[in-house]
Amino acid sequence: MTTAIAAQDYEVALLHVQYGQKTAVRELRAFQAIADHYGVGERLVTNLNHLRQIGGSSLTDDRIAVSEVDLTAEGIPSSYVPFRNAHLLSIATSWAEVIGASRIFLGAVEEDSSGYPDCRISFIEAFNRVIEQGTKPETEVRIETPLISLSKQEIVMRGSALKAPLALSWSCYQNVDKACGVCDSCALRLRGFARAGLADPIAYEDDAFRRRYT
Amino acid sequence: MTTAIAAQDYEVALLHVQYGQKTAVRELRAFQAIADHYGVGERLVTNLNHLRQIGGSSLTDDRIAVSEVDLTAEGIPSSYVPFRNAHLLSIATSWAEVIGASRIFLGAVEEDSSGYPDCRISFIEAFNRVIEQGTKPETEVRIETPLISLSKQEIVMRGSALKAPLALSWSCYQNVDKACGVCDSCALRLRGFARAGLADPIAYEDDAFRRRYT
Repeated sequence: MTTAIAAQDYEVALLHVQYGQKTAVRELRAFQAIADHYGVGERLVTNLNHLRQIGGSSLTDDRIAVSEVDLTAEGIPSSYVPFRNAHLLSIATSWAEVIGASRIFLGAVEEDSSGYPDCRISFIEAFNRVIEQGTKPETEVRIETPLISLSKQEIVMRGSALKAPLALSWSCYQNVDKACGVCDSCALRLRGFARAGLADPIAYEDDAFRRRYT
Repeated sequence: MTTAIAAQDYEVALLHVQYGQKTAVRELRAFQAIADHYGVGERLVTNLNHLRQIGGSSLTDDRIAVSEVDLTAEGIPSSYVPFRNAHLLSIATSWAEVIGASRIFLGAVEEDSSGYPDCRISFIEAFNRVIEQGTKPETEVRIETPLISLSKQEIVMRGSALKAPLALSWSCYQNVDKACGVCDSCALRLRGFARAGLADPIAYEDDAFRRRYT
């Protein structure tokens, strides 16, 4: 979805990071399919061991279960990977500086997300200042977050309008074949499609999950 | 040296990152020896592949030679690893958040360093803001840079006063046995010891290098 927006105005290079998340293999497949769809030649696939070594999240630590959905819950969910987006943005910035890219597109979503501190606008603004201060004077890289203030419903509608290949995307935190339909990420996705009045084109373990969200 | 300062007031956990630098094996040996010296139990050794994949620095890219010293040169040296300290600080922050550490000590040096943008006070201040915004509300982590405004001469003198095990430390960018004495990092180190009126306890390829700096 962010790729669809970036591709309107920029030549795109795509970064995929495996950070020990349980669905890394499935996410890589989605990444390559989306990169193929947009004909992106410049791709960087890299692997971080330390987020798994450090643990502290249900996404990277096998001792912590992925929680089932409670979209009304307050606070930081167990899927929060400590400071993850700083790692992703650091890799993107180093790469951008070397290949001469001017923008980093990140699909973070603030309001309709799961309450991750590193998805907030204030975090992105602070990181843009770090990039200004921590790179060469001639480097002009900025982070763009075109989805950050949108609801999932608006994202689905915008993706559909842009003909983004939503069937190739993956959101589930725990399955790699059919989506579970019950983790936070599946729930937010299904609710977004339901509110947009569109059918989610990916497969779920049980079709009943599709009807749970309105 | 930074460990000597941190150990005065804090229980220390030590992080070592292999990011594809040519002297990674030697730096790991120094890390373990210093950790042993201070009796540090909590150690994290991790490996980043992407800085080597991304390249762009003489420290990580075999196609770029480590330059011989020119301490009067202006601009960013070829040893600059794009945005490296943001990666190191991101790992340290994630780890600090999980183990409940309150401070990250970083041995960056601004004035007497090689002109790396990610060693400046303004970069560290900006990163502290990123940590505030990108971690859990209850997380209270801040970066401390006790050496940042010191010259190498002052660092050597302070290390000597604190009985820091300088013989266990490693600075050379290209050798892993005896230090080369001619890369930027050796030159800054040797000049620091010379100005402090102290002998550098590590071995150099050629003892004549010791007398080159005053």
